[in-house]
Amino acid sequence: MELKNLFNPKTVAVIGASRNPEKVGNVLMKNIMESSSKRIVIPINPNAPEILGKKSYKNIKEVKEKVDLAIIAVPAKFVLESVKECNDKGVKDLVIVTSGFSEMGDKTAEDNLKSFLDQNKMRAVGVNCLGIYDAQSSLNALFIPRERMKFPKPGGISFVCQSGAIGLAIIDLAAARGYRFSKFVSYGNATQLDESDYLEYLSNDKDTKVICMYIEGVKDGKKFFETAKKVAKKKPIVVVKGGLSEEGKKAALSHTGSLAGAKETYFGIFDQVNIIKTDNLEEMFNVASVLENPIEIKGNRVQIITNGGGYGIVSTDAISASKNLKFAELSEKTQKELKKTMPDYVHIRNPLDISGDATSQRYKDALTNILPDKNVDVIILVALYQTPLITEDITNIISRAKAGTKKPIVVISTGSDFTEKLSQKLEEHNIPVFMFPHSAITALDKIVGYMKKR
Amino acid sequence: MELKNLFNPKTVAVIGASRNPEKVGNVLMKNIMESSSKRIVIPINPNAPEILGKKSYKNIKEVKEKVDLAIIAVPAKFVLESVKECNDKGVKDLVIVTSGFSEMGDKTAEDNLKSFLDQNKMRAVGVNCLGIYDAQSSLNALFIPRERMKFPKPGGISFVCQSGAIGLAIIDLAAARGYRFSKFVSYGNATQLDESDYLEYLSNDKDTKVICMYIEGVKDGKKFFETAKKVAKKKPIVVVKGGLSEEGKKAALSHTGSLAGAKETYFGIFDQVNIIKTDNLEEMFNVASVLENPIEIKGNRVQIITNGGGYGIVSTDAISASKNLKFAELSEKTQKELKKTMPDYVHIRNPLDISGDATSQRYKDALTNILPDKNVDVIILVALYQTPLITEDITNIISRAKAGTKKPIVVISTGSDFTEKLSQKLEEHNIPVFMFPHSAITALDKIVGYMKKR
Repeated sequence: MELKNLFNPKTVAVIGASRNPEKVGNVLMKNIMESSSKRIVIPINPNAPEILGKKSYKNIKEVKEKVDLAIIAVPAKFVLESVKECNDKGVKDLVIVTSGFSEMGDKTAEDNLKSFLDQNKMRAVGVNCLGIYDAQSSLNALFIPRERMKFPKPGGISFVCQSGAIGLAIIDLAAARGYRFSKFVSYGNATQLDESDYLEYLSNDKDTKVICMYIEGVKDGKKFFETAKKVAKKKPIVVVKGGLSEEGKKAALSHTGSLAGAKETYFGIFDQVNIIKTDNLEEMFNVASVLENPIEIKGNRVQIITNGGGYGIVSTDAISASKNLKFAELSEKTQKELKKTMPDYVHIRNPLDISGDATSQRYKDALTNILPDKNVDVIILVALYQTPLITEDITNIISRAKAGTKKPIVVISTGSDFTEKLSQKLEEHNIPVFMFPHSAITALDKIVGYMKKR
Repeated sequence: MELKNLFNPKTVAVIGASRNPEKVGNVLMKNIMESSSKRIVIPINPNAPEILGKKSYKNIKEVKEKVDLAIIAVPAKFVLESVKECNDKGVKDLVIVTSGFSEMGDKTAEDNLKSFLDQNKMRAVGVNCLGIYDAQSSLNALFIPRERMKFPKPGGISFVCQSGAIGLAIIDLAAARGYRFSKFVSYGNATQLDESDYLEYLSNDKDTKVICMYIEGVKDGKKFFETAKKVAKKKPIVVVKGGLSEEGKKAALSHTGSLAGAKETYFGIFDQVNIIKTDNLEEMFNVASVLENPIEIKGNRVQIITNGGGYGIVSTDAISASKNLKFAELSEKTQKELKKTMPDYVHIRNPLDISGDATSQRYKDALTNILPDKNVDVIILVALYQTPLITEDITNIISRAKAGTKKPIVVISTGSDFTEKLSQKLEEHNIPVFMFPHSAITALDKIVGYMKKR
């Protein structure tokens, strides 16, 4: 399914545009206009001659220029009519944010809408959704005011989300945490375009490196199975499934009109097609934030380097408890080299506790010796910056050591401002940083499990 | 065990004080002096007449005034001698930060030290530790420079931590996250004072509401069992155990000389004495941050209120998957009242999805009706502030609703700056806030489990 017009339209019409700043149709206009000055935005509203400085049309059919995408924000009872007018005008790509269909019990209206969309080969996001966002093409077509949230920088994470609220909260948080995004779509009831269509499109999108999904209920099980199977071979898919419990299923039905289905069925499919199943939203983005970086994981042998003994121990426990990770055993050559550079009281082993008095130089010695070791597939580097002998150039040391290789270094650093400043520098150099050992190791475990099966 | 002199000494001597800002003995002096101007700090160093503006003594025995606490930061081979001098001077309370004892293989030196301390009824923290910190008495006797970390505000969390690195990283993070602390002790090898002594002391400390512990190996199993059993009836104890795996145990032995013991034994004891076992450091402080507030939980019935449908669903799934939590069923009276105030499209149920267009007033209506309901023991309140109709006074509405009751409201809000600002306001009103449903619900589950057994 080609969805290029959805995510990077030259001309967008907003049907139901409004002059009232509290209305969805106003927020949408503003967001699209402010996110890129290059895009042409056309308001459609029969009762206003001009909206936000743009000439308004009574009907999309009156617009002379070619329209790539129409966003529909009119009440439910007018949606089908608007869709028909779009079709008459030749606008085949739509985002319908309007709610009040099957999630409110009106299945007939939604079925009629779907029939028309299908018959006329249109492509519609929604209904009952928040809209779409593309950090790469600078398109913000979400009906949430920008004052209260931030938007992530361009990057490789795309997020297909059935829930609008989860989508916007996570986008806002992602911006704060420095996660880099490609595309976001809140698809609500999935009246016509469904999760499988988005998956297929994103698998061919060169900006997308990892696909995150929050799913309540899949529309077409067979289609999803076939699509996901194909896509997961190309790009990792990370999923949180909502509506796992009986109570959750009931809630999903009145939320997006979804049949959430049996947990076992979903988990079975995820396992068969090699989808990375995560237990919660935080874990999903922990996994994605590692996969967004240019890494290559060739095996499951992890070496821990730490300047905090306790962190070495809890990391070791977490690796032991993991499903897919093993401890690396350093080659004899590496051991010999490390013995030369490390002080006597540093035991050459795994975890390698380079001690609370570790200098930046000691980190450098550890990294430059261990990174090329063929017995090591992944390095977990605990760097607690509170200890005084680490200098601020530690971030250069780590990123320089990393520059020559795709072998992943995952850094764990806990703390406040000083720590956050250094962590941010590392992330700018494509090195993922976690606050806690368990978060890093759970993410790595899932990733290695995926790589093994691919 | 009375440890008041340790945590709130009037006069502190630093044995091994130094003029060199890179030395432990200098950092300790500075931290103690800067954390409170009321405390008298006396440097002991035979080679300097003055350190940081204070007259230095060759030996603690030369000091005329009464000394409440001596911090020992001399090399391992001089420690016993310094301890003997303290005893001669009548100083019975010590913090020995020096390392190089059993954790480095020298068990004899540590045994000799312990014998002397025991025989002379002294009370010593350490050896091989980071020191102590008391937010209530403003004592910072840690040997980490203050420039790189922050310290938490005074409050009710005390943290007994065998690992120095975990201690300082968590303290720094706790400050950033707004957790409020009473006492922190990094106790290293537990040569003489052990985890049970700290537990007993903290159970009688009026400032401490919840005790967190990171333990690698317990020194005296029977003593720990008896003490923890008694203390857990009075105050919650939340534990992370390090060295659960075979590999982790080996690492613990060379870290604090601890015999980490069998996982099953520890877990069995935790269960028997009603210690709250958590799986990682983050979870430990999630639990503690709820318990630090003045709450009373009378049962396990949770009502979810949310303005995000998806958040309602994942929260519902998490409660279903929990060990101890159940869904509240609103009383008929509450249901009737809610029907009056909520719009038609809000289903009166659990989760109560007050919809993406919820105003602050709708939150108020939901809270004031549900809080007094006898069928509800805990409220999970999802407040996604990105939606435009919530006004900033939502924090006043929530905290005013909460003011009359000890029934806990746990808030879930995800986002960046705007969200963080509002979350901080709630926390100042003793309302715990979490970023993700799973974190809040896991913490609540553990707390309800503890309350049930108490």
